[in-house]
Amino acid sequence: MLTKDKKVLIVGLGLMGGSYAEALTRQGFQVGAVTRSQDSIDYALEQGIIQSGSTSVSQETVGGYDVVVLALYPHVLLQWIADNQQFIKPGALITDVTGVKSQLVYKVQEMLRPDLEFVGAHPMAGREVYGVRNATSAIFKGANYIVTPTPSNTPDAIADVEQLGLLLGCTRISRLTPEEHDSMIGFLSQLTHCIAVALMTGKDVEHMSAYTGDSFRDLTRIARINDEMWSELFLINRPALLEQMDLFTGQMQILRDAIATGDTKTLRSMMKLSTERRALFDK
Amino acid sequence: MLTKDKKVLIVGLGLMGGSYAEALTRQGFQVGAVTRSQDSIDYALEQGIIQSGSTSVSQETVGGYDVVVLALYPHVLLQWIADNQQFIKPGALITDVTGVKSQLVYKVQEMLRPDLEFVGAHPMAGREVYGVRNATSAIFKGANYIVTPTPSNTPDAIADVEQLGLLLGCTRISRLTPEEHDSMIGFLSQLTHCIAVALMTGKDVEHMSAYTGDSFRDLTRIARINDEMWSELFLINRPALLEQMDLFTGQMQILRDAIATGDTKTLRSMMKLSTERRALFDK
Repeated sequence: MLTKDKKVLIVGLGLMGGSYAEALTRQGFQVGAVTRSQDSIDYALEQGIIQSGSTSVSQETVGGYDVVVLALYPHVLLQWIADNQQFIKPGALITDVTGVKSQLVYKVQEMLRPDLEFVGAHPMAGREVYGVRNATSAIFKGANYIVTPTPSNTPDAIADVEQLGLLLGCTRISRLTPEEHDSMIGFLSQLTHCIAVALMTGKDVEHMSAYTGDSFRDLTRIARINDEMWSELFLINRPALLEQMDLFTGQMQILRDAIATGDTKTLRSMMKLSTERRALFDK
Repeated sequence: MLTKDKKVLIVGLGLMGGSYAEALTRQGFQVGAVTRSQDSIDYALEQGIIQSGSTSVSQETVGGYDVVVLALYPHVLLQWIADNQQFIKPGALITDVTGVKSQLVYKVQEMLRPDLEFVGAHPMAGREVYGVRNATSAIFKGANYIVTPTPSNTPDAIADVEQLGLLLGCTRISRLTPEEHDSMIGFLSQLTHCIAVALMTGKDVEHMSAYTGDSFRDLTRIARINDEMWSELFLINRPALLEQMDLFTGQMQILRDAIATGDTKTLRSMMKLSTERRALFDK
């Protein structure tokens, strides 16, 4: 049980880490942070979203926490565990926020000390801006939250990480295998970001803002993208993402053929299906 | 000048026609309507968004209006002009709301009585629902509005139709040739609807609503689509739409190749460009 006497450490105080910190502080937990930038620590202390923080990682700054949330880029995350797991309190629960799982979860679990447990998690929330100054627990409100346990996880630890999602403000908590997660996210999140980038880069759109309706604005909101993070996420999830891109491109080809040949029947039946299905996705 | 003593006739009292009616009634114009459904007339009279209405088209129901707004499906629009322009008041100004232009504007202008003038217009606004019961002038707030004059139009008529856009509540009024409009709309509106339909129909997404974030919801909002209207719009604008689909698919292929080969440099430079450009599109 994540009782309020548990102390939570946020590792990496960016948009997501900061939003976790704010949400958990509001819930009454004692929250600390380690991160690279002193400015981020200062800001988070000022805002009262952490109670302590440090740019140095040591027994003193890490060893007192029962729950550790890794809010780091994937390659940094693995290195952080390798370098710093020595400082983590025995019996601590470790989780993350990362958008890719199968290339990460097993590696972390393999390298982890036997007295520690890692359960992967992915809150389906974010913003087009980053850094702790843009952090807000509002992003979790009504959001989906996916937990990706493996056979090496214990029921108690899985339950705690699920409870963490509810404490953040997420409403639908799901379990997927790391592989299922990556396929799902390849489609729902990474493919959609590819589409937005392709729309904005394929032609000179700079003069078009006077002509657009909401549809184009909606489709390209996520074209404002953290290129360092997303290029890393795309490449780590390469096989699943390529599969989803190919499925999508194939479907666009079916639509293209129907338009080219004037096949109204196919067009209308695809539109009817999409209309029916979309109704399921309203929050 | 569209002074408030001008009487406006809405032809086709659906989502768009009804929204025009509400906006113009609020602005103090006397607004009438002709449409097929008595129920739509009754509803609009009850709501006070028209002052008179009829399901029959005659000298009596059409002949008294200075401005005629055609809010009809493209093929219905041409037939309506052919059948009913005899009833329109000499010197009246005619405009429309249609999402395709080059296949419509010239045909209307060619068939029109010489004492009438038609200026095409397209408010970039809409909803995923239809019918007069969903009509609201709120859809025009801050929207773009495109006027597509041709060499046969007079400066006064063009100015009146531009003024109509402002009266609706649109903020940016632009002029494009019918051909420029169709190319623009093929990209900004029709291609985006194709993408949304392709996303919803390519795989069984019915169980996925528990996993998605806002990005997928945003991209597929317009997957709820009026299949009769949009299949007609797609086919009328076929050459422009196919061109935009091919440009987009080509861009997706560049992204795919970069992901497949691990070309981080290309990925990041595309993401940087899309991020820069997208900032221009916020309302």
